[in-house]
Amino acid sequence: MSPADHAQLALLLEVAATPKPGNVDRERDYPNLRFEHFLAGAVGSAAGLRMANERGPTAPSVGEAFERAVAGMSQQDGGNTQFGCLLLLVPLVRGAARGDLSPAGVTEVVEDTTVEDAADFYRAFEHVDVAVDDPPADAPDLDVRRGSDAIPALDERGLTLADVMALSADGDANAREWVGGFERTFDAAAAVVDDDGPILDRVARAFLKLLAEEPDSLVAVEHGGEVAEEVRRKAEAARGDPESVAALADEFVERGVNPGTTADLTAAAIFVALERGVPV
Amino acid sequence: MSPADHAQLALLLEVAATPKPGNVDRERDYPNLRFEHFLAGAVGSAAGLRMANERGPTAPSVGEAFERAVAGMSQQDGGNTQFGCLLLLVPLVRGAARGDLSPAGVTEVVEDTTVEDAADFYRAFEHVDVAVDDPPADAPDLDVRRGSDAIPALDERGLTLADVMALSADGDANAREWVGGFERTFDAAAAVVDDDGPILDRVARAFLKLLAEEPDSLVAVEHGGEVAEEVRRKAEAARGDPESVAALADEFVERGVNPGTTADLTAAAIFVALERGVPV
Repeated sequence: MSPADHAQLALLLEVAATPKPGNVDRERDYPNLRFEHFLAGAVGSAAGLRMANERGPTAPSVGEAFERAVAGMSQQDGGNTQFGCLLLLVPLVRGAARGDLSPAGVTEVVEDTTVEDAADFYRAFEHVDVAVDDPPADAPDLDVRRGSDAIPALDERGLTLADVMALSADGDANAREWVGGFERTFDAAAAVVDDDGPILDRVARAFLKLLAEEPDSLVAVEHGGEVAEEVRRKAEAARGDPESVAALADEFVERGVNPGTTADLTAAAIFVALERGVPV
Repeated sequence: MSPADHAQLALLLEVAATPKPGNVDRERDYPNLRFEHFLAGAVGSAAGLRMANERGPTAPSVGEAFERAVAGMSQQDGGNTQFGCLLLLVPLVRGAARGDLSPAGVTEVVEDTTVEDAADFYRAFEHVDVAVDDPPADAPDLDVRRGSDAIPALDERGLTLADVMALSADGDANAREWVGGFERTFDAAAAVVDDDGPILDRVARAFLKLLAEEPDSLVAVEHGGEVAEEVRRKAEAARGDPESVAALADEFVERGVNPGTTADLTAAAIFVALERGVPV
């Protein structure tokens, strides 16, 4: 399978793995965000992931590939299913396509991004509603919710996509991956590779490890930092005990506590693990 | 989404829909044939489905597209996940690519197949073990389990892929679709479109309708015609009562009764329903 195929499979394995407390999985839906929306999102993402899989001077840029993937992903009725997953997967696929899926290789992909990639990133927000934090107080013109209206501000400031991620890194774990060599991604991928048993069980354990490690960014945006820390603490306490994890899964879905950023990191880790040869 | 995308999504929605008595679904696995194998099979099938989606004089043949789809599908550890689904989907996708997804349009695709398409069909059996019936007593040289060794016999007899399907139509419901204008496929697709509620519920109901309608070919091959008829009768009796259907699902998995041909027909029907605009 190509890196683009592995990325698509990562999206599917991520949503299928269960239990993933607070997220849609093989056993749990939200009323308007259901399993089938993620399946359709993974199918629609493929063309953009194949663009990310190209290399050389005529290859589409990372920004173009991401915007195309998000446009395809959003062709289903559930809304935003995999925006954050794709934000991590696209530079990882490009790194793999260049033959260097490592912290250094992916950091090179990040550092090669341009102002035009940043503009494509902003355009991607027009395809789907994404829950995000407010922009920094001194940069209201860079609010991603402005979509392409923010492009003149990017141009004026000369911000590349790497720069945009650096500005968001404080409050967003996905942006931190971009500027920090995808440290948690590679770390969780190694845990999946070193684990044993069926892939979906390995994925569920990797999700819980990530959730127990740091407060989830999406939970922090939607419910505040205290709830995000409570979720982290509960995940840490439940880890390793299937009954407690299942109870947590029911509790979080009930409360609408959706650790979506942890799911993004999990998908990214599955991709790296698949590239490293983990069997399915 | 393109017809190739809809075909891939059909594979995913088919396996996700539950309960589908006797089959792997969102809630049930067999020990060595699990949900993740079907996800990987759907990812691997995509390149062949895109070949089926081409049109015009330079398009790959139906046989080439099918063989490529099966080769990609079989890159997972579960064995044969979607051979039969692909056998139905490939000509349907080609019909859609030609702009005529109708019994007449797909029959034209079937009638255009050549001896070389038949050879590709036989080559596809080398990628994966497929449970099949014995060949007709007067044609042991055409046993599909011979793979490409059977190609000289095809050449000698001048058999196209349509001819091969006609020879199998008695015992194989998929071959009957090929030679009969995909009657049950289009009929079940109409039921999915006319139904309401979430797509996965519609799919589960369509599966049960198909299972209640005719004995499943794979069950007949693996367990004999009497068991296949018993399964049909039980499906007919359980239809419409969720508790009975769930009990049947548990019973069939327990007995290893796997109505795989009905799953193939269901995937084909989902594809047509998606092309007709059923929402996801």
